Amino acid sequence: MVNLMPAPPKSKRRAKNKARGSRNVYSFGPGGADGNRDMRNLLGGKGANLAEMSNLGLPVPPGFTITTEVCTWYYAHGEQYPATLRDEVREALGKIEAELGKRFGDAENPLLLSVRSGARVSMPGMMDTVLNLGLNDVTVEGLAKRSGNPRFAWDAYRRFVQMYGDVVLGIGPDPGEEFDPFTLALEKRKIRRRVENDTDLTADDLMELVRNFKAIVKKRTKKDFPDDPVEQLWGAVGAVFGSWNTRRAIAYRQMSNIPGDWGTAVNVMAMVFGNLGETSGTGVAFTRDPASGEKTFYGEYLMNAQGEDVVAGIRTPEKIASLQKRMPKAYRELLRIQKLLEKHYRDMQDLEFTIEDGRLFMLQCRAGKRTGFAAVRIAADMVRERLIDKKEALKRVDPEALNQLLQPVFAAADLKRARAAGYVLTKGLNAGPGAATGRIAFTAEQAEATAKAGEPVLLVRVETSPEDIKGMQAAQGILTARGGMTSHAALVARQMGKVCVAGAGDCAIDYKTRRMTVRGRTFREGDYLSLDGSTGEVIQGELKTEPSEVLAVLFGKGKRKRKPGPVFRAYQQMMKWADEYRTLGVRTNADQPDQCETAIAFGAEGIGLCRTEHMFFEKIDAMRRTILADDAKEREQALKELLPLQRKDFEGIFKVMGSRPVTIRTLDPPLHEFLPHEEKDQRALAKQMRIPLAKVKAKVESLTELNPMLGHRGCRLGITYPEITRMQARAIFEAACNVAKRTKKRPQPEIMIPLVGTADELRLQAAEVRTVAEEVFAKKKTRIPYLIGTMIELPRAALTADKIAEHADFFSFGTNDLTQTTFGISRDDAGKFIPVYVEDEIYPDDPFASLDTAGVGRLMKIASAEGRSTRSDIKLGICGEHGGDPRSVNFCHELGLEYVSCSPFRVPVARMAAAQAALKAQEG
Amino acid sequence: MVNLMPAPPKSKRRAKNKARGSRNVYSFGPGGADGNRDMRNLLGGKGANLAEMSNLGLPVPPGFTITTEVCTWYYAHGEQYPATLRDEVREALGKIEAELGKRFGDAENPLLLSVRSGARVSMPGMMDTVLNLGLNDVTVEGLAKRSGNPRFAWDAYRRFVQMYGDVVLGIGPDPGEEFDPFTLALEKRKIRRRVENDTDLTADDLMELVRNFKAIVKKRTKKDFPDDPVEQLWGAVGAVFGSWNTRRAIAYRQMSNIPGDWGTAVNVMAMVFGNLGETSGTGVAFTRDPASGEKTFYGEYLMNAQGEDVVAGIRTPEKIASLQKRMPKAYRELLRIQKLLEKHYRDMQDLEFTIEDGRLFMLQCRAGKRTGFAAVRIAADMVRERLIDKKEALKRVDPEALNQLLQPVFAAADLKRARAAGYVLTKGLNAGPGAATGRIAFTAEQAEATAKAGEPVLLVRVETSPEDIKGMQAAQGILTARGGMTSHAALVARQMGKVCVAGAGDCAIDYKTRRMTVRGRTFREGDYLSLDGSTGEVIQGELKTEPSEVLAVLFGKGKRKRKPGPVFRAYQQMMKWADEYRTLGVRTNADQPDQCETAIAFGAEGIGLCRTEHMFFEKIDAMRRTILADDAKEREQALKELLPLQRKDFEGIFKVMGSRPVTIRTLDPPLHEFLPHEEKDQRALAKQMRIPLAKVKAKVESLTELNPMLGHRGCRLGITYPEITRMQARAIFEAACNVAKRTKKRPQPEIMIPLVGTADELRLQAAEVRTVAEEVFAKKKTRIPYLIGTMIELPRAALTADKIAEHADFFSFGTNDLTQTTFGISRDDAGKFIPVYVEDEIYPDDPFASLDTAGVGRLMKIASAEGRSTRSDIKLGICGEHGGDPRSVNFCHELGLEYVSCSPFRVPVARMAAAQAALKAQEG
Repeated sequence: MVNLMPAPPKSKRRAKNKARGSRNVYSFGPGGADGNRDMRNLLGGKGANLAEMSNLGLPVPPGFTITTEVCTWYYAHGEQYPATLRDEVREALGKIEAELGKRFGDAENPLLLSVRSGARVSMPGMMDTVLNLGLNDVTVEGLAKRSGNPRFAWDAYRRFVQMYGDVVLGIGPDPGEEFDPFTLALEKRKIRRRVENDTDLTADDLMELVRNFKAIVKKRTKKDFPDDPVEQLWGAVGAVFGSWNTRRAIAYRQMSNIPGDWGTAVNVMAMVFGNLGETSGTGVAFTRDPASGEKTFYGEYLMNAQGEDVVAGIRTPEKIASLQKRMPKAYRELLRIQKLLEKHYRDMQDLEFTIEDGRLFMLQCRAGKRTGFAAVRIAADMVRERLIDKKEALKRVDPEALNQLLQPVFAAADLKRARAAGYVLTKGLNAGPGAATGRIAFTAEQAEATAKAGEPVLLVRVETSPEDIKGMQAAQGILTARGGMTSHAALVARQMGKVCVAGAGDCAIDYKTRRMTVRGRTFREGDYLSLDGSTGEVIQGELKTEPSEVLAVLFGKGKRKRKPGPVFRAYQQMMKWADEYRTLGVRTNADQPDQCETAIAFGAEGIGLCRTEHMFFEKIDAMRRTILADDAKEREQALKELLPLQRKDFEGIFKVMGSRPVTIRTLDPPLHEFLPHEEKDQRALAKQMRIPLAKVKAKVESLTELNPMLGHRGCRLGITYPEITRMQARAIFEAACNVAKRTKKRPQPEIMIPLVGTADELRLQAAEVRTVAEEVFAKKKTRIPYLIGTMIELPRAALTADKIAEHADFFSFGTNDLTQTTFGISRDDAGKFIPVYVEDEIYPDDPFASLDTAGVGRLMKIASAEGRSTRSDIKLGICGEHGGDPRSVNFCHELGLEYVSCSPFRVPVARMAAAQAALKAQEG
Repeated sequence: MVNLMPAPPKSKRRAKNKARGSRNVYSFGPGGADGNRDMRNLLGGKGANLAEMSNLGLPVPPGFTITTEVCTWYYAHGEQYPATLRDEVREALGKIEAELGKRFGDAENPLLLSVRSGARVSMPGMMDTVLNLGLNDVTVEGLAKRSGNPRFAWDAYRRFVQMYGDVVLGIGPDPGEEFDPFTLALEKRKIRRRVENDTDLTADDLMELVRNFKAIVKKRTKKDFPDDPVEQLWGAVGAVFGSWNTRRAIAYRQMSNIPGDWGTAVNVMAMVFGNLGETSGTGVAFTRDPASGEKTFYGEYLMNAQGEDVVAGIRTPEKIASLQKRMPKAYRELLRIQKLLEKHYRDMQDLEFTIEDGRLFMLQCRAGKRTGFAAVRIAADMVRERLIDKKEALKRVDPEALNQLLQPVFAAADLKRARAAGYVLTKGLNAGPGAATGRIAFTAEQAEATAKAGEPVLLVRVETSPEDIKGMQAAQGILTARGGMTSHAALVARQMGKVCVAGAGDCAIDYKTRRMTVRGRTFREGDYLSLDGSTGEVIQGELKTEPSEVLAVLFGKGKRKRKPGPVFRAYQQMMKWADEYRTLGVRTNADQPDQCETAIAFGAEGIGLCRTEHMFFEKIDAMRRTILADDAKEREQALKELLPLQRKDFEGIFKVMGSRPVTIRTLDPPLHEFLPHEEKDQRALAKQMRIPLAKVKAKVESLTELNPMLGHRGCRLGITYPEITRMQARAIFEAACNVAKRTKKRPQPEIMIPLVGTADELRLQAAEVRTVAEEVFAKKKTRIPYLIGTMIELPRAALTADKIAEHADFFSFGTNDLTQTTFGISRDDAGKFIPVYVEDEIYPDDPFASLDTAGVGRLMKIASAEGRSTRSDIKLGICGEHGGDPRSVNFCHELGLEYVSCSPFRVPVARMAAAQAALKAQEG
């Protein structure tokens, strides 16, 4: 029994004199709460929802939340607590004691607590939890007496010491060991007692284990295990705050773009027990199917277990439906609550519950994570159900999630053949949809190494943990032997959009020998395996993949054509709504007619970047003759051969694009890229061209550059070899005229000069283009409307955009190169330090993936303002890869660009992101 | 005789309706002038000074000036003239006729005109001149009769047709010929007549030649030579304007940074004749010696000659002193006028005069071009003479001119030996001071090629012309066989600061065989030759060079120590005045104690950039061990060996620099630069280090980058290998503490982190440095004040300078890399297109030589403002090579930087430029 709240540990005492004006602790419980759902930033998601459920009168165990602001304050003040926190916690604890009639640390009727983290957004597996806090050699006896179940009490105590030792005291595996000493001691004990399951151990075994565990703690920390419940509590609070800044938490935040200064709240709640026997249990449920989005109550539970058992995947849980028979009353209550919560939150909910001796308690509710399929389908369905409106539906779907709808499935023939051959090894849980094939890797490190070597890889683990995140990212798919649909592997894989088969219990994985045996068949690291994340099948060997439902409806031909199903219909509905709201145009980066067709099917409204170098690579012989030419005359001769070929390319593109605008970039890459660099290839070229090998070598040598990225490329080629620009312009205009004559469409070429750094470069290149245009129009006796513009991809172009705009009908931000030059980083060479940079949070994001608004974005702002200052109607767009990144799209919307352009498969993502940006701007 | 002024040629008639509000034509002459010296921008330098001399009552032939604005208007309106120009010219011509009692085109007493260009600043040899305009088959007879000298009249006519044919009608050499057809016809005639000099030809010969010349014109232009004087006049005016935009004029403007839109004026003046016989002559003079600056009347003249003969160097002219005996009256008058003009203009003047039949006429005066020696000396002297004040003296000296004072002379021993051996081949005119040695090139192209191959080169020509400018730039020195101190070669060389020996008549140069014979000794292209531009000696073979007077006084030791002479005294005086006015600090870029000593002698106030990589190259073995280390531990071991070596380096620098600030940049270059790239060197390294060759190769391979400029370098090394930064910081602080203990000085290290792109990079590196500093201070029981700052050399650093400044005591603009990234140009690779760019005026200047204010400068402005916004006292400097470029220094002054830093030999230039910038700012 504790009468006085002692001071927090010494190191924190210095903070006493530092006051914090606002309230630090918010209570919740059956009688209502101090907070509510709108206080997510302050209380964290978990705390806000516990308060909300309390206010709704749902059965929530009493507890309190220490706010996220305390965490931020804690890190801003050298890891010390605000002065008033101690008293506030004491008061809140008093309320719980009063509510339950138990006392924290009481020898007779002890209150036990769970301490859990709770950030603004859910970070599964990232933050640590301590259960059964408050147990010691005295209170355990009280618990044993009160519960009439000494085995339960000692098991709780054993779990508490183990968890506290791990999470708070940081006791991990000894060097060279795979498991921590607690787990090893537990396993040893089971072996000694010749039992298989934890549940087979007796109260005496557990009592002995607690003694063992405490000895481990003493040995490793040189201190006794803390017996004082209050000291335990503050230790746990400190551990929650500490876990905010562990490497794994930081890694997760990076992946999920969560700012490091949000901080986490701490939720302290009275324990309820799902492991009190066969009338107790614990489970996780979703108000709709999180994989397909189907409207059906979906969940899993374990009898006689604590929550951690479900998530950890140690035992494979049962389907929620079976609970109806086992405990009809609790099931009915759960069904009522899940309906109420979905309606109340107007979103699919993920619930955690515990049944203690037949009585249901709600431990958590939150918006449920879902696959892309489910996200789109649920959003569309909820509009039909009038739960939400169109705008809300659009805001609900992470644009990236649309990617999943375009993920491959296995080729039907391959799958049939594999099935017939008996290659389907086993079936696990269909935890992450899609089809993946790759080489087996048994560790995250190996998965990364295999991916780095350019090989497809599947991460195969008994179960995954946050340490595996990088390996999961590197893998095409994830297979686990243990764990359910809500296991770590399943949750993270769905979020990443990775294929995942979880809980495939037939897979016997031996990390030491690096082998997996499935029903008698053995696989080694590096062997090929295939996973169907939609069916859960694990298949031997390499299978071909093919388009998803959306792709099959859009592009399927003949037998592969599919009729629209619920996913496609939902996709189409959402895209239609997105187009209603977005104001940004969406174009595509494409340079082949088939790419153009794909992009149009995905909703592209034009081409924002048609690179011409790919065409040159296809006509490499003529291109090489051009480069090897001795003078302008010989070069023009070689270019004459290229002209009809390039014209044909453009005709193909204009035919598909019709009257949509087509932005064509003149030749950009350095010329040496077109010449062979190996001697044998040079020899072959010399022979073919009937010129001396020495000449080829000399040319290659003379074109070699120390920094080709900053060398003789872009418009610098056009300036030094204007005949190349003229040939390209001729091909474009002749093609446009020809297509205009043959079809009813009116091609809209927009000619884009790359790598402009000064106005004069554009002026001179534009003059070449205009001259050719007039020649072609005169010859063809027709005119085609066309624009001339430039990429803004050098800082100097952005800084002098007023001058450049005098010669430009449009600017297109080439943010790939603009990022390279603004940061002074070559994408090709950044591999050596970018990982360290992202890990150390020097770069909040990879600037090549998401636009760096502070640097590159500022240049874009300058360029937009300067460009408009001399040409108010200048057309602005973006054609760097950022054009398909939702956050970058939002920035482009704010900047008032006319369009974004991205690769064909990113077009749906960009459309959705553009709609969200417009909605965000509407809301101000 | 001409009664009506006909319309200008048809193509220009369309401009008639286009009016120009202001006056287009300004008259001058004995009775005074419409303009004056302050109207240089409008009338050009020549026109303004002709007006001024007229106003001073000096004997100027009457004439008029068509303004520079007409030239600008002409190019802005498709090469047409303003509508009123015709009438204005007619009126001005009438005034000349009235003044002289002659009439333009009159058969009896014809007025002849010279038509000359005249831009705001003198552009020697760039613009074309037509003399004797107004001659035709009728007027030549009038001239013959009036002058009583038919030979003179026909020679004038011959010269006119030749000059008009060349300049106005553009008749150059036939393909394959070296000389134009007029020159060839003239030479043929002399051979036929078996005479050597032009003057030996008779009136009949000249009459015949005029017929030949007109036939040549007819053949080449398909038109008759224009007989109508007015048509001749408009043709010449058009040619003057046309010559403003010839390639050679544009090239000169680029070299001299003259804007293309200034335009040129046209000066039309009545002809006076220096070739009327032995009482006539023409000459050029300077009011002081343009080479040494000595106060002595200095000049050259030719009897019985026209001005072109002096400049062209066809005959070697006589010294001005001899005129006193020949024509004492004219000489006295000239002496009076030169004194008057120098006093009036308060500057050394360059005069052109003609004596017609004993009567002196002033044809031009202008500020005289001078060597750097002369510029410094004249400026200092004139202050003493109370002609100008200190400020004016400072403004008079082109900072670049100071460079010449630091140019080498030949090593005395070498010169003595060469003289003793009879290697002094001949003596020409000492036209450009300094000593140069190099391989002979007979053409500008060859000179450029030799320089490109890294060899020193001397351009050896009979005479030079504007076409040779690039070759002159490439050469260490220039030797001509013909021409005086005012020849093209001499003028241009002095301006460029090149060594030049002119008019070395013993040199017989044969372009066809590419040989030169000097008094029986023959030299081939590529042979070594040496030139002493101070004595005019031409010396066989390669001679060692040594320091100039200023250098010898400052640094000479033992026998090589010199006492201050007039040049050194003037230099010192000017530098003292510069320091009085400048507010910008001047530091140096140096990383060796001897460099530091040099820089301090030149007035450096600290080090702005001490690169540490050179030190690493000297300790390459330990550095290689560092790089080849397998892990951080092994690396730290290797770094331990480097520590004492690097500490010693810094001790040496701190000892020299005393209490002056020393900015030290941490390691910057990519690591692969320290490893050997040739297999045999790799093999040797492997052997030496006792590691497998494969390991060396693998390391080199792994460090190879596609774009090393944008790769793993700068602070990216320090972030990934913090142990390197720590070792460097330790070496710096230990050295500073040691020097502080041993001397009374207090070293001021300023540690500079390179290639920072985000605030966090600096924060992390600064933390490493601070930690080491505290460790060292504790160990050494002393504290050294120090700063930590960063280079601003990436656009992103400039754009986010507010955030970076939170961790920086100072910024130093690294404008070399900032220019590379802002333009997206690698300096190493720009060779292929930068020449085309500068030639086509796409880049007004090479941005690596002179700061690009629109792009790079704008980023500097942003960085300064942002940096000061979060840290108002942030110290700003520049350490790129622009720190020694006067125009860039001026920009840095405007930006309010604290200091510029440049190489030791540029320190005097920077001090002078900084003073001029301060004076310019004072004047607003």
